[in-house]
Amino acid sequence: MSAPAFLNLPISKITDAFKRGDLSPVEVLETCLERIKVRDDTLNAFVHLNENARHQAIKAERAVREGTELGPLHGIPIAVKDNYLTAEMPSTAGTSANVDFPQHDSAAVAALRAAGAILIGKTRMHEFAWGMETPPARNPHDETRVPGGSSGGSGAALAAGMCLAATGSDTGGSIRIPASLCGTVGFKPTFGMISRSGIVPHSWSLDTAGPLTRCVDDAALLSDVMSGPDPDDLGSSTRPAKAIWGTEALPADSFNVGVCRNHFFDALQDDVAGSVESTIELLASAGARIVEFEIPDLAYGLGAIFAIELASSSAYHQHALNTGSVENFSDDVQLLVEMGERVRATDYLHAERFRTRLARTFAEAMREIDVVVGPTMPVTAWTVGQREVTLAGQTESVLESAWRLTYPWNLLGLPAITLPCGRDRDGLPIGFQMAGRPFDDARVVTFARIVENLVN
Amino acid sequence: MSAPAFLNLPISKITDAFKRGDLSPVEVLETCLERIKVRDDTLNAFVHLNENARHQAIKAERAVREGTELGPLHGIPIAVKDNYLTAEMPSTAGTSANVDFPQHDSAAVAALRAAGAILIGKTRMHEFAWGMETPPARNPHDETRVPGGSSGGSGAALAAGMCLAATGSDTGGSIRIPASLCGTVGFKPTFGMISRSGIVPHSWSLDTAGPLTRCVDDAALLSDVMSGPDPDDLGSSTRPAKAIWGTEALPADSFNVGVCRNHFFDALQDDVAGSVESTIELLASAGARIVEFEIPDLAYGLGAIFAIELASSSAYHQHALNTGSVENFSDDVQLLVEMGERVRATDYLHAERFRTRLARTFAEAMREIDVVVGPTMPVTAWTVGQREVTLAGQTESVLESAWRLTYPWNLLGLPAITLPCGRDRDGLPIGFQMAGRPFDDARVVTFARIVENLVN
Repeated sequence: MSAPAFLNLPISKITDAFKRGDLSPVEVLETCLERIKVRDDTLNAFVHLNENARHQAIKAERAVREGTELGPLHGIPIAVKDNYLTAEMPSTAGTSANVDFPQHDSAAVAALRAAGAILIGKTRMHEFAWGMETPPARNPHDETRVPGGSSGGSGAALAAGMCLAATGSDTGGSIRIPASLCGTVGFKPTFGMISRSGIVPHSWSLDTAGPLTRCVDDAALLSDVMSGPDPDDLGSSTRPAKAIWGTEALPADSFNVGVCRNHFFDALQDDVAGSVESTIELLASAGARIVEFEIPDLAYGLGAIFAIELASSSAYHQHALNTGSVENFSDDVQLLVEMGERVRATDYLHAERFRTRLARTFAEAMREIDVVVGPTMPVTAWTVGQREVTLAGQTESVLESAWRLTYPWNLLGLPAITLPCGRDRDGLPIGFQMAGRPFDDARVVTFARIVENLVN
Repeated sequence: MSAPAFLNLPISKITDAFKRGDLSPVEVLETCLERIKVRDDTLNAFVHLNENARHQAIKAERAVREGTELGPLHGIPIAVKDNYLTAEMPSTAGTSANVDFPQHDSAAVAALRAAGAILIGKTRMHEFAWGMETPPARNPHDETRVPGGSSGGSGAALAAGMCLAATGSDTGGSIRIPASLCGTVGFKPTFGMISRSGIVPHSWSLDTAGPLTRCVDDAALLSDVMSGPDPDDLGSSTRPAKAIWGTEALPADSFNVGVCRNHFFDALQDDVAGSVESTIELLASAGARIVEFEIPDLAYGLGAIFAIELASSSAYHQHALNTGSVENFSDDVQLLVEMGERVRATDYLHAERFRTRLARTFAEAMREIDVVVGPTMPVTAWTVGQREVTLAGQTESVLESAWRLTYPWNLLGLPAITLPCGRDRDGLPIGFQMAGRPFDDARVVTFARIVENLVN
């Protein structure tokens, strides 16, 4: 099946084509549904398809014809990670335990719907977003490989053209990891920008909602639609959302680009290192000022985020722990949730204090730096069933390797975006990660557009 | 010994008198030292006196004569709680364990010194500010009674005229409790306003530095001197300090005054209830609009603050716990520090989440309310050695009783001030507490001035 040309267009061009009558929402939806039919038996990206999607596409087409004022996502099929509650589809958050999730729209889904999106279905995720794989989903670039996770279904669905964008949630990398492995854009905005109200929590102080998209422009568009203060989310920022989409393009030479040489460049797969260094060279040639720096304390970050995630997830699952229903979780998640109950408050506090100090250290370093760039992951997609990777002579679990370069931006709450910057010798996508100052999302996205143009 | 007239003047009038030559810094200091000599053998307010104080007073007097520009605390003897590090005096933070505290000025002390204050000595406190008594300090109004704590030495020193103002620190009430029991003003500004850098921590997210003073005007003055952002304190607010002293006086009828009828009025000593209700009636007569309300969830606050204090204090004392040197702490503090290590991170998180939700509930309630008023404590000063009080037919420990009405404002981080509003049948002072919105300290202080005028 050859890709229809519209799959290469940003969403705003597709809705323009709707308005001109060159393309119809029904045509786009049918293309996505056809791809789901052909590929999803193998890819396992979806756990539920929206029975109302066709009806909504027909309504969307009629609205176009009638000249109704259209939202920025009018008629666009979007896949929703299964931890976002939805009114017209059940939610499982990846668990097969008998949890009765309410059937109403999460704040972000309500916003997508209000902008005209068609929710095509719910995507597969690791149970309660605990973990960095999404069994049994597969990578569209090589079906023997994983799509990453925990938003793995979203990554696979998008990369296979089964939707035009997808939502994810990112606690330690769960948007950027599948985006990197599946070759899409993945954007984790500043913590607090998008309401998590109605998204099943994993770790309150880390969880960030955001989009997986085919291009940077779409990431800005979806983020704008979903952003804004929400008193129902205790972590929501009270500052009014600023539009990112449509921000004026800037030349590369107006950016100071930081390269944090410790931690973020440790033990990389050769092809990953090669692609990332080439991209940095492209940026330098285009006039960006490259600033190398180091943040030695980063070595303690893993212990800190792990203590915070363990404790937070177990506090969320307190009822399941108290009643013993945690037994119905999968073995790995049960173990993690039981471990988390044993974390001491003193250790949690040491972790939070480390985090605050690290944020100050980064804020200091980033006074003169607009974006920090590097690889999104040390590796490309690994084979299903693979447990370990050996990099620079050191063996680590694939899960440790997966989030090693993404979790610092969760710990710091900073905006971070990944986009594909090349392919490895097996043709698997490599992710380039860019992060910025808090609430400076527009600048990060503006910069990501430059990179997108340079590498394509 | 009769009180010299200047002890009834606010600090700004005393420094005016210095400038006019009607009074000299040496005269003021000698008066304080004389009172220390006469009373401190019994009151035990000080743990250390500044050997340089006389020399500094002489220098201050010379500066007046020479017409040097004078700071707002020029020549004013101020007592410093012994958990504020000081350059010219050792610090113990109330412990007799062999801890080697650095001998340099804490940020707040440096600010007082830069404003011209004379640091007369270090005041007694409960070990590491853990506890609400300050043995062996006594209450100047009745030497068989406690001054409260943990800033008990500061309360006793000030009430006995041994200094013109004092510093305290308030984690669950430790400024307002001794101020209430000793009949002084005690001000806990909004969390983050005054740097705690160089103050021995008790609980990072609760500890608040502030002054104990003879009048509201002085509380504003000292708070202004000590306030301001400080990157060395992870809890310091980044917003620039706004001056409180000199804020324009407002009439009572420009205030909406909240009376939270649950929790804050439960189980009060009769005379306390009487004085507080009379004060509220005075306010109503003066034109203030009284708004009664309830915040039912407050009942869970005690569990929340206790979990946070226990865990934070133990995290601070991690080294003592790890090395076993916690054995050198007093028995009650050792027990608390060992208990704190057993608090689970999940419980800590439940406590912090309760706290955030409570803050939102209060913020909602306080949209139409400028200040919340009520008693500072359910009781007046109890007898040394007394362990329990019976109020409204219920027996509770004196320590539970002590902080019951003060800790909510620590949990919420809101500005709170106490001032004496009357005396009980034994002539012991009764405290009236006023709290306000975050960073709305000027309004709270402006209102406290009205109350001060009404009750005097």
